[in-house]
Amino acid sequence: MSQGSISEAQSSEHIEIGEEIHALAARIFPICRSITGNGVRETLGCLAAHIALDVQEVPTGTQVFDWEVPREWTIEDAYIKNERGHRVVDFRASNLHVLNYSVPVHATMSLSELKPHIFTLPDQPDLIPYRTSYYAERWGFCMAHNQLLALEEGHYEVCVDSRLADGHLTYGEYLHRGEAVDEILFSAHICHPSLADDNCSGLALLTHLAKRLNGRRTRYSYRFLFAPGTIGAITWLARNEAHVPHIKHGLVISCVGDGGGPTYKKSRRGDTMIDRVMSHVLRHAGGEPKIIDFFPYGYDERQYCSPGFDLPVGLFQRSQFATFPEYHTSADNLDFIRPEHLGASYEMIWDAIEILEKNRRFRNLAPKCEPQLGRRGLYASVGGDKDGAARAMAMLWVLNFSDGRHNLLDIAERADMRFDVIAEAAERLVESGLLEDDAISA
Amino acid sequence: MSQGSISEAQSSEHIEIGEEIHALAARIFPICRSITGNGVRETLGCLAAHIALDVQEVPTGTQVFDWEVPREWTIEDAYIKNERGHRVVDFRASNLHVLNYSVPVHATMSLSELKPHIFTLPDQPDLIPYRTSYYAERWGFCMAHNQLLALEEGHYEVCVDSRLADGHLTYGEYLHRGEAVDEILFSAHICHPSLADDNCSGLALLTHLAKRLNGRRTRYSYRFLFAPGTIGAITWLARNEAHVPHIKHGLVISCVGDGGGPTYKKSRRGDTMIDRVMSHVLRHAGGEPKIIDFFPYGYDERQYCSPGFDLPVGLFQRSQFATFPEYHTSADNLDFIRPEHLGASYEMIWDAIEILEKNRRFRNLAPKCEPQLGRRGLYASVGGDKDGAARAMAMLWVLNFSDGRHNLLDIAERADMRFDVIAEAAERLVESGLLEDDAISA
Amino acid sequence: MSQGSISEAQSSEHIEIGEEIHALAARIFPICRSITGNGVRETLGCLAAHIALDVQEVPTGTQVFDWEVPREWTIEDAYIKNERGHRVVDFRASNLHVLNYSVPVHATMSLSELKPHIFTLPDQPDLIPYRTSYYAERWGFCMAHNQLLALEEGHYEVCVDSRLADGHLTYGEYLHRGEAVDEILFSAHICHPSLADDNCSGLALLTHLAKRLNGRRTRYSYRFLFAPGTIGAITWLARNEAHVPHIKHGLVISCVGDGGGPTYKKSRRGDTMIDRVMSHVLRHAGGEPKIIDFFPYGYDERQYCSPGFDLPVGLFQRSQFATFPEYHTSADNLDFIRPEHLGASYEMIWDAIEILEKNRRFRNLAPKCEPQLGRRGLYASVGGDKDGAARAMAMLWVLNFSDGRHNLLDIAERADMRFDVIAEAAERLVESGLLEDDAISA
Repeated sequence: MSQGSISEAQSSEHIEIGEEIHALAARIFPICRSITGNGVRETLGCLAAHIALDVQEVPTGTQVFDWEVPREWTIEDAYIKNERGHRVVDFRASNLHVLNYSVPVHATMSLSELKPHIFTLPDQPDLIPYRTSYYAERWGFCMAHNQLLALEEGHYEVCVDSRLADGHLTYGEYLHRGEAVDEILFSAHICHPSLADDNCSGLALLTHLAKRLNGRRTRYSYRFLFAPGTIGAITWLARNEAHVPHIKHGLVISCVGDGGGPTYKKSRRGDTMIDRVMSHVLRHAGGEPKIIDFFPYGYDERQYCSPGFDLPVGLFQRSQFATFPEYHTSADNLDFIRPEHLGASYEMIWDAIEILEKNRRFRNLAPKCEPQLGRRGLYASVGGDKDGAARAMAMLWVLNFSDGRHNLLDIAERADMRFDVIAEAAERLVESGLLEDDAISA
Repeated sequence: MSQGSISEAQSSEHIEIGEEIHALAARIFPICRSITGNGVRETLGCLAAHIALDVQEVPTGTQVFDWEVPREWTIEDAYIKNERGHRVVDFRASNLHVLNYSVPVHATMSLSELKPHIFTLPDQPDLIPYRTSYYAERWGFCMAHNQLLALEEGHYEVCVDSRLADGHLTYGEYLHRGEAVDEILFSAHICHPSLADDNCSGLALLTHLAKRLNGRRTRYSYRFLFAPGTIGAITWLARNEAHVPHIKHGLVISCVGDGGGPTYKKSRRGDTMIDRVMSHVLRHAGGEPKIIDFFPYGYDERQYCSPGFDLPVGLFQRSQFATFPEYHTSADNLDFIRPEHLGASYEMIWDAIEILEKNRRFRNLAPKCEPQLGRRGLYASVGGDKDGAARAMAMLWVLNFSDGRHNLLDIAERADMRFDVIAEAAERLVESGLLEDDAISA
Repeated sequence: MSQGSISEAQSSEHIEIGEEIHALAARIFPICRSITGNGVRETLGCLAAHIALDVQEVPTGTQVFDWEVPREWTIEDAYIKNERGHRVVDFRASNLHVLNYSVPVHATMSLSELKPHIFTLPDQPDLIPYRTSYYAERWGFCMAHNQLLALEEGHYEVCVDSRLADGHLTYGEYLHRGEAVDEILFSAHICHPSLADDNCSGLALLTHLAKRLNGRRTRYSYRFLFAPGTIGAITWLARNEAHVPHIKHGLVISCVGDGGGPTYKKSRRGDTMIDRVMSHVLRHAGGEPKIIDFFPYGYDERQYCSPGFDLPVGLFQRSQFATFPEYHTSADNLDFIRPEHLGASYEMIWDAIEILEKNRRFRNLAPKCEPQLGRRGLYASVGGDKDGAARAMAMLWVLNFSDGRHNLLDIAERADMRFDVIAEAAERLVESGLLEDDAISA
């Protein structure tokens, strides 16, 4: 466990995993995803190269709570050609150019007829916006505002070679089985096209996290869900309602490759274990941690935290969504996400896992006055280095508060020390016979 | 409901009601009131021109808890004449000149004999102070300090043509009956003479509030009490002790015509519904809201919040009493109170009433995941104007927290949105069948 | 009770007691104390000149919880002589020069052989550090770093004429019996040699406090414990385990003669009466009060607050230990502690005692509306001086909150007034028949 300051030089392991995540993000970046269709399938295929993914297909029209699984979207090409036959907007250059889930169109029209179908960002005139129209049938294009201004009057051939037809909604799941059926859920949306941070970063990070867990013995089981935003999470919840009570902790993961934050948005309940764990990790992670209360808008925590489920699921990000200029634009590209940030994000999530796995309650077997640490060699290091003093202090904290009411995280919080330092102290005290695992687990 | 920023240009209705309140305040301003006597009767007569006031007369000597109803004070005239027969102090110019509840005197005396009976404000030398002596038998005059300094040596004829005799204590009540016997109490003191803010403003505002309620269907009943400070409230409580449990919320109203604050002093309990409602209203009212904890000194909240009653009654003011230079001086005149401030104060109180009337608990009928707002036309405005986005967000808040545990005010507070926006969202959701009134009311 | 600002000119009584405490601290300062041995006995002898001290001797080897009473340390002399026979380090000049609890040594060795046995403070090169080695058998010397640098190469005769042998651990107790068997514990460590603030100040202050209580009638009993740090408190707790439940409040006292702080470190529980009382006293004491949460390191609060006891015992100091440059050095001498600081510390502790003794719950006998203070002569002073207004306000607070749920300290805290002002108001209200002692004590 190495929380470490974000700004610190990172361990080589850390850099290495960051580079692997970046490589996978880069691999899936060009794919044109939407809430349904082959883009999702192709992306799941890339993830499946790393982990034994279970891919589910749910037919169009399936009722999922208040919603219906929508038609499947297929897109082959899209462009706007000027009178000289030149593609002034070309889907092949960037899949952001097409209004995501656009209905097909093939027509020639004047610039003024075309304009209502074009979306730009006048305040960021060189960027292409990302726009969708899932539930209103529309066609459209997105482009840089400056490019729009440069369009000459005249007629244009517009083509969106897409198809909306009955098919399936696709999502992928991976389950790592631990000792318990109790689960930790990690969920990332897979519906955005070429946006690197949002959410190639999350998909790639979780894939590597699942890969690392593979073969390890863990206390908890771990479920990884790669599903389209909103409708995907709703579909999963509708199909797995009976299973939901096993989810004891959870995180929605997105935008984990930029250098901002880190940001944690609490679960609806606000005081669950995952809220406490993530607050602890972020407080000790360096950077500029931002811990915010739940609000019913954002990513799929909206669904997990709907009142009928009210699950202990928070949202982990680096920069908070919708607060940075690259968000939902063509500037959210592969340069915007960096291996060191992906590595640091990965480590924060790993630290949270370590706490969830290791947190328990111990009992001080010599609770009346302090036990004599010196004759057990546990105090030797006090006079010495700073780390030695911190280790001794951690032991005093663990001894004093292992009274049957405080678990290790409680103690770490009260001591304002990192969980791993407290957990290591507990381990040493157990070895020396001063502490025992409390029968009733934390 | 239009809370609106105090500093914003106000609606014409708002200005209009402010002008009506100011006119009534101006009508009662010249009357010389005290804790008993014809000044109170005459004032109640002016209010009765607007509402069907019930005037009560309680005989001198009546025991009311630890107190006795005092004698009735009648004053005809008061002056100090110099040796040339000129009235250097004249009650007819300002009723503040006479020490309120002064015993009669008619004598000639030297300036040095007179001086111990004269009250001035050396730090505000041009203002006449307001002073009383209810429970010690004294006579006296109040005047500008500069005027006192200008008095020549010599003899003066002093006259207070007053009478203290058995009679009555007078107060007025108005009850608007709602569906419930549960009441909201509004109370204003009627004992101060020519002080505009303190409390012609409160008397006039409550009169117009009662008038507006007249004929309206309301959930609560509304009681308006216009009674002399301290002894009046004590008398009312003593005579209505059995009725007191019906008071569910209450406000003491004074100094609501100046441009300060707004100020809310919480009830003794500090966490009652009226405390939460007024805090909400003030936080969204603009200006410089000041929300202060209860302390056992001030206006009649002292009596309502005595430990034997401990009623949920707070104090609403603009500037907090005893903190502004005009307080209890001749500068608290009709120029000091302004229609726009009276109108804004009125609107704040009305907003509080709206919340108390409309606050209830709803139940989300589609609590598992979000319902699909789009196909119901409830999301249409999201991409559009700012208000539309706020309305959609309000719906998400109402849906997420209408779980049987949160009422609309809880949700408004958690969302940090105005109550009316939340209430309107709830209304739309009820119309669309996504929400129902929770059987157990908030 | 005279909390008064620390910075204010102090009463003559205050100065006088400060001087008496300083004189006793000066008397015991030169004695070479350790965790066992004649230094402790001689010190207790000096305290016994003031109070009827009960001195206990506990044999070496006695098991006390996880510890054993150690051997007794006797020291006659210690020095380092240079080749010219000159004592370059001399125990007779300062007992800090010898590593406390040092094993005996008598040998001649080169400077380089000697150096590993010498402790200095390179950052404070003119000060002698205070160092101990209780649980590792070592010999050594402490000296100014500049003096070490000045030592010439060559051979030195080193001598610690000490003895470690079976004997006793010694501590002293004094019990003032009050009406109740419930006790307030005051505990000061007696094991440090010539350090004035740490803890000649605490020993001398508590001795004079015990002396002042002698012959007084008190509600509580008061126990004073003068014992070696850690092992002494552990020994006392082990021998008095059955008695421990009588300890209702307690303070560990050390470093009370310097001009810093005042500092209060809360008990482990953090919300006990002594925590509230000390917080109140410090908030009203002037200076720069520092109220800190419990942590399991420091003085004997570590033992009293071990989880098996979890007693309501805090630590009172002026400057917090280990935060000031004189701490554990030869600069902690008789000039560092001053009569005015000792007097102020004494008064703060006395104020705490006054609150613990006087705090109780009263009941307002006229709880419905305010009683008429005026006709009882209780309001006379309102219009008058500032103190009179404060006294009247204190009465209103006491009346309003003496509802069977708030004791005087609760009321003082809520009113943000000094406890003594509130207590005096309660006394006057009891005299006037408006208040009575609540049967169920606070």
